Amino acid sequence: MDRSKVVRALGYRWEGVPLREYKAEGSHFHAISRQSLIGEREDEQGANFLTRYFELQPGGYSTLEHHQHPHTVVVLRGTGEVILGDRVEAIGLHDCIYIAPDTFHQFHAVGGEPLGFLCTVDRIRDRPALPSQEELKQLSCHDGIRRRMRI
Amino acid sequence: MDRSKVVRALGYRWEGVPLREYKAEGSHFHAISRQSLIGEREDEQGANFLTRYFELQPGGYSTLEHHQHPHTVVVLRGTGEVILGDRVEAIGLHDCIYIAPDTFHQFHAVGGEPLGFLCTVDRIRDRPALPSQEELKQLSCHDGIRRRMRI
Repeated sequence: MDRSKVVRALGYRWEGVPLREYKAEGSHFHAISRQSLIGEREDEQGANFLTRYFELQPGGYSTLEHHQHPHTVVVLRGTGEVILGDRVEAIGLHDCIYIAPDTFHQFHAVGGEPLGFLCTVDRIRDRPALPSQEELKQLSCHDGIRRRMRI
Repeated sequence: MDRSKVVRALGYRWEGVPLREYKAEGSHFHAISRQSLIGEREDEQGANFLTRYFELQPGGYSTLEHHQHPHTVVVLRGTGEVILGDRVEAIGLHDCIYIAPDTFHQFHAVGGEPLGFLCTVDRIRDRPALPSQEELKQLSCHDGIRRRMRI
């Protein structure tokens, strides 16, 4: 049975929410943490979507990946850049980013400060996929992406 | 076909996002606006959930209602109070509120400043219902709720 609740913020941590590794394994990301705010606990299973908070330390980046499920992101802290399909966009406080199905994306904390954002996803979703060699070649055709991407 | 995008924040407005009435009709709310950030436009239909931003001016409140679909809320601005089932909770910056299915809830900007929050919901969801006379009587048994609620 689901329970209504307030999960209190304490700086950029939340009461009772563990600070986790971004992913269990891999080396295609750097200096990024994950907090699962709403949706994963036993008494939150009525939610069809999960709200997580990711934070990248300066120089940190997420995995360059794509997947069928979309992401909705809202920046809560700092500035940075995101590879979004065939371009690189600057992002800052409260900007919303819609990552449409099958769009390659990678977040970068390039502003000399932490970059923190909410990211909402479907509870049931496909697994992310890394770019193939062919896809990497295509992505590298774009100067801005080639300079920014980390794999 | 969905399109990835950055919806840029400008204060507590977003580029290209109209400021709307909270609801089309009714008098059971006060001094509250709605901006639909991601999910409602034609090229965002791949998202199964909608991300909206609500802002209450000082003294403003949302409808006291319940529904089967859950809400996930993250406060972006100010402080306030929320009626959450059988209690009233103070809320502030970056607090997350999970409103479980069928929980009566009402947001109040009681901090002398605007209260702004993100609210994510399923695209396909049931309609909110106002409390019946019997439910109002039950809610009024709680001193804090009786003092705070507006109908």
